[in-house]
Amino acid sequence: MIGLVSGGDWNILKWRENNGIIRSKSKNNLHNYCESWRMNVEVNNIRGFSVVPQECVESVKKYMTSSQYKSDCERAMEEVRVYLSECCTIKGDSKDAWIFDIDDTLLSTIPYYKKHGFGGEKVNASSLEAWMKEGKAPAVDHTLELFHEIRNRGIKIFLVSSRKETLRSPTVDNLIKVGYHGWATLKLRGLDDELMEVKKYQSKVRQQMVDEGYRIWGIVGDQWSSFEGLPSAHRTFKLPNSMYYVP
Amino acid sequence: MIGLVSGGDWNILKWRENNGIIRSKSKNNLHNYCESWRMNVEVNNIRGFSVVPQECVESVKKYMTSSQYKSDCERAMEEVRVYLSECCTIKGDSKDAWIFDIDDTLLSTIPYYKKHGFGGEKVNASSLEAWMKEGKAPAVDHTLELFHEIRNRGIKIFLVSSRKETLRSPTVDNLIKVGYHGWATLKLRGLDDELMEVKKYQSKVRQQMVDEGYRIWGIVGDQWSSFEGLPSAHRTFKLPNSMYYVP
Repeated sequence: MIGLVSGGDWNILKWRENNGIIRSKSKNNLHNYCESWRMNVEVNNIRGFSVVPQECVESVKKYMTSSQYKSDCERAMEEVRVYLSECCTIKGDSKDAWIFDIDDTLLSTIPYYKKHGFGGEKVNASSLEAWMKEGKAPAVDHTLELFHEIRNRGIKIFLVSSRKETLRSPTVDNLIKVGYHGWATLKLRGLDDELMEVKKYQSKVRQQMVDEGYRIWGIVGDQWSSFEGLPSAHRTFKLPNSMYYVP
Repeated sequence: MIGLVSGGDWNILKWRENNGIIRSKSKNNLHNYCESWRMNVEVNNIRGFSVVPQECVESVKKYMTSSQYKSDCERAMEEVRVYLSECCTIKGDSKDAWIFDIDDTLLSTIPYYKKHGFGGEKVNASSLEAWMKEGKAPAVDHTLELFHEIRNRGIKIFLVSSRKETLRSPTVDNLIKVGYHGWATLKLRGLDDELMEVKKYQSKVRQQMVDEGYRIWGIVGDQWSSFEGLPSAHRTFKLPNSMYYVP
């Protein structure tokens, strides 16, 4: 467990990490420390965290609800457009494909995490799934437009999510309600896939697509596990997410 | 060319990008815009830039000379330590290997870019090489210690750089002067390799290592081109660098 360690100099923050190591920082350095944590999560240097370090929860909350987060997503989407303008010779054989993650790529889970400690609490799967079943997730700013731009180019859209198959109906309802429609395939995790690491599940889906003759031009996702492994896509675009880590 | 576009509202900054598109932002949004540019460079969404956008040069300068940059590097190095503590069964057969980039990984080019517009000017190869020949680059904070920790574990260190073979002698002198010693191999680019994309050159070196039976446990570098392609390392660790892009 991660926990604040009390006592000592009031200007020094001490805490115990997952691995038992006690760390301390002057509060002046805490901003730098949490920014470094976030940056190192984004570039995939920090992997496998089960909760946001307690001392950085405020910082993650601030970022995920900031104009900076929106701006970071917007810029990523603009880079997709730059890429699309030069990348892909669409052959008209219906074999051009694009993959999107769902959570925190098309649909935002921020309203859920707002009520559940912004990643500072270990994820409670049943509570998260109950929230997903309500189908009230808003669209992630800027991806909705891009989704339709890609579709309008004649590229088939594959939604590949680690959501469970049992959530299919509320997921479809939610996507349509906020404006997504016209995808080619929605892949969710069946019982067999649930036992698999997300990274392997995502690779497996891409392998099936390649076997069926699809050219995967790109993937937009918020987790590195959506990009890693083989076969890979021509390009990948990482959206920010420092609330949770999917291995 | 990227250039500021004059005229109009004094509170609106307008500029022309490489692709000819004129962009504008209120100055209040410029901070967000440049932070988004930097973040999207770091996660490899923005690729192939030949200069830092003119309106973000100040922001890159501020970051690359900040305590935040040092803290970001430090955190990356700490994650290498976490990984090392659990990753690698060192067999004692001298086939355990680790790869480091040189520039902005072991040696800092910040003193050079300080005098050359912090990435806002297109890189002048002969001026940069003349500076490298002086052999005065300081060590990047925090990597020197890590370098020796890895070496002391019995892991062979391979330095793989896109510096030219002709820079071998000043490079060795510079490395030793600031405290690096005891690497197994220093790979620089010969005439044949110079014609190759850095990404392909790096892959080729890794392929040779794998063919010789090495297990590549990790790579520390500041460019994605040091990680991409096959064969890959078990893990890669990205150090920040928003001054230039190596394809």
